[in-house]
Amino acid sequence: MREVRRSVYFVTQNKGKFREAAQVTAAFGISLKQLNTAKLEIQADRLTDVATFAAKTAAESRGSAVVSEDAGFFVDALSGFPGPYSSYAFKSIGTGGILRLMRGVTRRSAHFSAAVAYCEPNKRPVCFTGTAEGFVSKHERGSQGFGFDPIFVPNDGDGRTFAEMRIDEKNTLSHRAKAFAKFSRWYTSDRLT
Amino acid sequence: MREVRRSVYFVTQNKGKFREAAQVTAAFGISLKQLNTAKLEIQADRLTDVATFAAKTAAESRGSAVVSEDAGFFVDALSGFPGPYSSYAFKSIGTGGILRLMRGVTRRSAHFSAAVAYCEPNKRPVCFTGTAEGFVSKHERGSQGFGFDPIFVPNDGDGRTFAEMRIDEKNTLSHRAKAFAKFSRWYTSDRLT
Repeated sequence: MREVRRSVYFVTQNKGKFREAAQVTAAFGISLKQLNTAKLEIQADRLTDVATFAAKTAAESRGSAVVSEDAGFFVDALSGFPGPYSSYAFKSIGTGGILRLMRGVTRRSAHFSAAVAYCEPNKRPVCFTGTAEGFVSKHERGSQGFGFDPIFVPNDGDGRTFAEMRIDEKNTLSHRAKAFAKFSRWYTSDRLT
Repeated sequence: MREVRRSVYFVTQNKGKFREAAQVTAAFGISLKQLNTAKLEIQADRLTDVATFAAKTAAESRGSAVVSEDAGFFVDALSGFPGPYSSYAFKSIGTGGILRLMRGVTRRSAHFSAAVAYCEPNKRPVCFTGTAEGFVSKHERGSQGFGFDPIFVPNDGDGRTFAEMRIDEKNTLSHRAKAFAKFSRWYTSDRLT
């Protein structure tokens, strides 16, 4: 592995996402810088399509290398809802809406997924994914993290929701950390995909 | 008003939308032709942004004039959910999901909105909107129309849901018909906006 000390822009307006991602990449010697501007997101059922399109357009318009991330919360009993549009679902019906839809539902399996895309100007984007399997809790628990974290219990944890964990704890389990770790390994290696 | 006998492409994969729109424009002497291909939709809270972006990219890639439409179902008690992502919400939680979220909720006001964008290659898109105010029914009723039509009762109707109406009846009240009528009036006139 080469010694790399480089900084890369992460296009996001979400401070929570940025803090989580920066901690992961720092362990690989990559300094993330937040590019706090709106990115162009397409409507697509696949997170990888959303992330790669956003990275491509941001890299071209800015003229520099960027990473972009798209994540979603997928509840099996709701046919994957809220999925790629989790952000809007969170703003409108919130965690309470998901709990209402899941009232009386015994099949509570769900997962978070993330797609991280890296793009340089005039190059093709490269995309990395991560998933955290778990289930929807009966009630909200915890105040850390963001989005649907208070109602998601990862299978590989100790029963706490994501919102009951510190960033470094969540980063040992989360979809986002897995995707950013894959990106970081690739970025600090020979970059063959 | 000039006599216009022109045909325009409508980019949509939704046959129900096409049938409704074609009936409206035909009354103005405009023959709509369905362009049954996927269009590029961005994630945006405003339907007009989604429709104009889609019309612009389709007009440029195809090299001809096109119309594109984006519509959404906005429930007040759910902070506008499902809104611009109604299509995904319909595919995942469906009308049953909305009724569950609205169980026991007395404030049932809602509206459908549509944005119709017209664009010629190398020109700026022009956009027209329409809205239908109403409320969420307690149960599904009717099998015509599509999407959330079986649970929406327009205020200006006779108590039936959109799904209990024939196309020509729905077109006297619907968001889509209003937006396509505005477009048609403009298209057959001097086209000043």
